[in-house]
Amino acid sequence: MSSSDIFIGEIIGTAVLILLGGGVCAAVTLKRSKAQNAGWPAITFGWGFAVLTAVYMTGSLSGAHLNPAVTVGIAIKDGDWNNVPVYFAGQLLGAMIGAALVWVAYYGQFHAHLTDRAIVGDPADKAVEGPHDESVAKAGPVLGVFSTGPEIRNVWQNVATEVLGTVVLVLAVLTQGLNDSGKGLGVLGGLMVSLVVVSIGLSLGGPTGYAINPARDLGPRIVHALLPLPNKGGSDWGYAWIPVVGPLIGGALAAGIYNIAFA
Amino acid sequence: MSSSDIFIGEIIGTAVLILLGGGVCAAVTLKRSKAQNAGWPAITFGWGFAVLTAVYMTGSLSGAHLNPAVTVGIAIKDGDWNNVPVYFAGQLLGAMIGAALVWVAYYGQFHAHLTDRAIVGDPADKAVEGPHDESVAKAGPVLGVFSTGPEIRNVWQNVATEVLGTVVLVLAVLTQGLNDSGKGLGVLGGLMVSLVVVSIGLSLGGPTGYAINPARDLGPRIVHALLPLPNKGGSDWGYAWIPVVGPLIGGALAAGIYNIAFA
Amino acid sequence: MSSSDIFIGEIIGTAVLILLGGGVCAAVTLKRSKAQNAGWPAITFGWGFAVLTAVYMTGSLSGAHLNPAVTVGIAIKDGDWNNVPVYFAGQLLGAMIGAALVWVAYYGQFHAHLTDRAIVGDPADKAVEGPHDESVAKAGPVLGVFSTGPEIRNVWQNVATEVLGTVVLVLAVLTQGLNDSGKGLGVLGGLMVSLVVVSIGLSLGGPTGYAINPARDLGPRIVHALLPLPNKGGSDWGYAWIPVVGPLIGGALAAGIYNIAFA
Amino acid sequence: MSSSDIFIGEIIGTAVLILLGGGVCAAVTLKRSKAQNAGWPAITFGWGFAVLTAVYMTGSLSGAHLNPAVTVGIAIKDGDWNNVPVYFAGQLLGAMIGAALVWVAYYGQFHAHLTDRAIVGDPADKAVEGPHDESVAKAGPVLGVFSTGPEIRNVWQNVATEVLGTVVLVLAVLTQGLNDSGKGLGVLGGLMVSLVVVSIGLSLGGPTGYAINPARDLGPRIVHALLPLPNKGGSDWGYAWIPVVGPLIGGALAAGIYNIAFA
Repeated sequence: MSSSDIFIGEIIGTAVLILLGGGVCAAVTLKRSKAQNAGWPAITFGWGFAVLTAVYMTGSLSGAHLNPAVTVGIAIKDGDWNNVPVYFAGQLLGAMIGAALVWVAYYGQFHAHLTDRAIVGDPADKAVEGPHDESVAKAGPVLGVFSTGPEIRNVWQNVATEVLGTVVLVLAVLTQGLNDSGKGLGVLGGLMVSLVVVSIGLSLGGPTGYAINPARDLGPRIVHALLPLPNKGGSDWGYAWIPVVGPLIGGALAAGIYNIAFA
Repeated sequence: MSSSDIFIGEIIGTAVLILLGGGVCAAVTLKRSKAQNAGWPAITFGWGFAVLTAVYMTGSLSGAHLNPAVTVGIAIKDGDWNNVPVYFAGQLLGAMIGAALVWVAYYGQFHAHLTDRAIVGDPADKAVEGPHDESVAKAGPVLGVFSTGPEIRNVWQNVATEVLGTVVLVLAVLTQGLNDSGKGLGVLGGLMVSLVVVSIGLSLGGPTGYAINPARDLGPRIVHALLPLPNKGGSDWGYAWIPVVGPLIGGALAAGIYNIAFA
Repeated sequence: MSSSDIFIGEIIGTAVLILLGGGVCAAVTLKRSKAQNAGWPAITFGWGFAVLTAVYMTGSLSGAHLNPAVTVGIAIKDGDWNNVPVYFAGQLLGAMIGAALVWVAYYGQFHAHLTDRAIVGDPADKAVEGPHDESVAKAGPVLGVFSTGPEIRNVWQNVATEVLGTVVLVLAVLTQGLNDSGKGLGVLGGLMVSLVVVSIGLSLGGPTGYAINPARDLGPRIVHALLPLPNKGGSDWGYAWIPVVGPLIGGALAAGIYNIAFA
Repeated sequence: MSSSDIFIGEIIGTAVLILLGGGVCAAVTLKRSKAQNAGWPAITFGWGFAVLTAVYMTGSLSGAHLNPAVTVGIAIKDGDWNNVPVYFAGQLLGAMIGAALVWVAYYGQFHAHLTDRAIVGDPADKAVEGPHDESVAKAGPVLGVFSTGPEIRNVWQNVATEVLGTVVLVLAVLTQGLNDSGKGLGVLGGLMVSLVVVSIGLSLGGPTGYAINPARDLGPRIVHALLPLPNKGGSDWGYAWIPVVGPLIGGALAAGIYNIAFA
């Protein structure tokens, strides 16, 4: 793969990933969305099929990493860091584009949600964000459409949960070559990894909202900070390092497990 | 493929698509249906598996476009517009047949729903249609079984949301040949595209109900206008151009992205 | 395939189908089940994956028809009625065994449910059975675990809905050979047909509960009539012919459509 | 496969299975989890995709039995008991590691849940555990995150339900070789078996919570007994033999049915 194919593929793929992944958070969270309060299973299948869609489109162009933690895991496994900066740049840029497109697609819903909330202090906001913790509530009512946040703020637990989720994801990506029977794994492998992402969401998403991908969290958080949304609240930069560092540790750890147990 | 196979395949396929897709809207909306209030995930999986079923049946006959936006995207990509009118005619006719069959399958439920509503002004109607907007409420209580409508009427946003959803759909269809490992993609590709449709529904369906297909919206709207349903309300023709024009723009845009980035 | 393999395969396959399909109805309906009130999507995925499991197990043994309507459709398409009586016998016997095993698996739940109901007239019974119609209510509170019943009794609509659902099912089965790329369709085809069954349930199950299979309805109804359940109510024999005749018409109609449009 | 690959593969695979499977129980049960009260479908898909993930990762290393009942079924079918102790040891050890990792991932949620409960006697605990039975309630409020328990205590029914569920699972595993078209079944077979597990959960999970795997139940129960959780309640050792013995009988029975009907 050429560097330009990788760059373009990661931009398109990560933009689609975040358009659909951020989209399902908007759909379930915002007022005057037909999917409001559709529940946690909708969010986890929404994110999983966002991965499926993005991988299906861009797998042949860039390999569809779409996630710096996957890129790090593959780089460690293969001992090849040449294209890592290109992957990272495409992923972050794509994630920012995707987050901006969510804002376009749900423009009126954002406006209605933030306006209503400012007036009446809408209790429905609590459903998805679960503001049991004061610092989460301070982070603003629509930040959850863009970035993740913990239900309970505990640095060590939050990092550990992100590490565990990412180990599962990246280990599944790294081992899929072992199952390759020569034909068709591209498509079937994308399906399987997307269901692994559903699994991580259902099982390990409860405490932190499962970033398991630094670009997925950081790119949209930057866009949240930049967008001219009224009453949007803060971007919770105090938490922002955890969904970057945790997944990177998880990706490296998965590569280590792979090299010891599977290689 | 011969023109007659294309015509017959698109009629059968689009009729099955709308029978099952309109069917799930009827199932979740209408009174005295066992699935009433089954929720947004039921609707999105119902439409996705409707695509799966229709593509699985008719893929070998007509290629299973089932959607003018897909036909336009493929025509631009291939530079071949020869069969486009045949596809369009089959799709619109099939969609009308499918919508009429929904009326047959749910005959008693339509009657019970519209009769009860006329008498008591049933608040349960609000669950799916979400009549936050006066113009939506005016459009009639069962139009949502046939055609889409926006939660918030905003021409530019409504068009943009339909464009974005259709770009994702048609780009997934256009790129699937790139993943083709020679065997079995027909079936596996149909599965993947149907899950892409679930994804679009979960993630981008909130604002407009995701027509992403001109035939899917226009054909059933015509049938709604023609059917002898009591108290059915208007067919909301003022909105009808958006789910036609938006998806066609989206299909063309997807072909443009494909030709620039993937070809 | 030998007659004895067909007979044994259909018994095992249909028994597994009804154990799992009746099982999910018991799980969602009965008191003191962990899945009580899990909702319509649980029922439709439960039945779909019941088909998946049974087809996956017995596809190589008997071809996994598991449904007289499928057997009729294939016999008309192939013009070969030789093994039809063997298929029918295995299917009916298997369905009865499966229904009896549901009673074993949920023994305490049946007892608790029927006992409580006799005392307090439990309103929760209404959730799944939807006794809007007096004749349904008369049919007894746990009949829905065994057999289907309509929300609205209307012979022509009830037959039409069963015909439409079965046409979709059998046409999907008949056309799957057209997609065959030579390898692996056995497993992939079983997956696709099971998702078609989910689709039919979500979209066309609302009015009658989608028997779409004479053995699935008649076998368990016989077992319901024979089991020593207290307060079980009647077996609604007045309705019993519809889920037999409707699906058989549907299977024949699908074969006719296949022979005209696809052959 | 070498004994060390089997041992390592079963440890990793069963640890991932229980991390994700126990994880979804924690996610749905515990306070201050974003997925609290996500419902029975979330639990059944969570466990099914946990199987998918673990099988996908470790299928090439150990064959991914991950379940003593599967190991017993395969040993009887093949008449080869050589590696059975290695499989058993890896499975039990892996299950214990996985259960400890659930505790790490949900550390704060366990603390918050048990602390709140001790003070206010939280009625939300009832949703998943369904303590209709005094002996279940005595077993402690978070035991359900680790191990299974019956809704109604009836030794013969509880054993029978576990036997039936395991027969379905192991028969699906044993027959999958019959569908093998030579290529790709590794991945596709893992997908199918994981959907069979979803099916068993939806359909046969209501009475006992479907252990269908001795290691899945016993390993986490031991960890529950060892962990320093406040107010955790007892580990219900009186029930512990049923989810061990029932599945082992089921695995052996499935092998017997296979040898008679399919071999």
